[in-house]
Amino acid sequence: MIGRFLEDFAVGQTFRSGAERIDKERIKTFGAELFDPQPFHLDEEAARDTIFGGLAASGWHTAAITMRLLVESDLKLAGAIVGAGADEFRWPRPVRPGDELRTESEVLAVRPSRSRPDQGLIKVRTTTLNQHDEAIQIIIANLLVRRPPTQRGKETNITELVDRA
Amino acid sequence: MIGRFLEDFAVGQTFRSGAERIDKERIKTFGAELFDPQPFHLDEEAARDTIFGGLAASGWHTAAITMRLLVESDLKLAGAIVGAGADEFRWPRPVRPGDELRTESEVLAVRPSRSRPDQGLIKVRTTTLNQHDEAIQIIIANLLVRRPPTQRGKETNITELVDRA
Repeated sequence: MIGRFLEDFAVGQTFRSGAERIDKERIKTFGAELFDPQPFHLDEEAARDTIFGGLAASGWHTAAITMRLLVESDLKLAGAIVGAGADEFRWPRPVRPGDELRTESEVLAVRPSRSRPDQGLIKVRTTTLNQHDEAIQIIIANLLVRRPPTQRGKETNITELVDRA
Repeated sequence: MIGRFLEDFAVGQTFRSGAERIDKERIKTFGAELFDPQPFHLDEEAARDTIFGGLAASGWHTAAITMRLLVESDLKLAGAIVGAGADEFRWPRPVRPGDELRTESEVLAVRPSRSRPDQGLIKVRTTTLNQHDEAIQIIIANLLVRRPPTQRGKETNITELVDRA
């Protein structure tokens, strides 16, 4: 399957991913060694006296896991999943060690690019849920989507495309 | 230094981080092994025929690096940097191997929490720039900030806090 073109999307469609468990060691590795070295992402003891009251995943860790779940979900965009940006982005509650995450996406809008006949944008709300079906991340993103080859003009680069979309 | 409390912030203040270079191997490791397994984040050859026209970092990689630059910047929040969400989030151009990233942040709004005397929110625009001073990520985030201990009531948990802020 090549993937879905702009014409294959309609408002109200929904897509789901599989689930993925986040264990304690992965929370610490992301926080400590990579990107978000703050006590509540690094160490149970140190996390106890913070606003989180215990170890929690970095929101950026959650966002990155959500991205992989999306890539592997049934939202199969032709070409790739490329985000032009987000209108809304929230983490309503923390992700704890052992939580199992999955995504539900809904198409909110579909439109061709104003300047590029070979491209369009879809607005998609993706909610990441834990094993209790509680939302732990909500993002409303604008994704670039290709149009069928018969409708495509010459290729452009990403900067032009985002500027003109 | 304990860090800045809500009362230490004012609209128009700016904060900067140091710079960090992103090399090719780190782009591939993030894309391939962790979170965003798409061709333009994984392999130079495969990336050539994509919308990016070459290897580019995952936007989530950029976001995570931005977070570490912020944690290590002179924006020192008392307690921690905890985001309640973002009003705007864009990647106006791609990050390429060898790019050197740094952040500039500006305080756009400061307000006490409506329900929690011990907390407040600041709205901060953080622009991540490359070595050519081009913006590669812009995020307007709402960050939770503590108020001085003399003004604090009992501690609350993060979920209550975000819900009520």
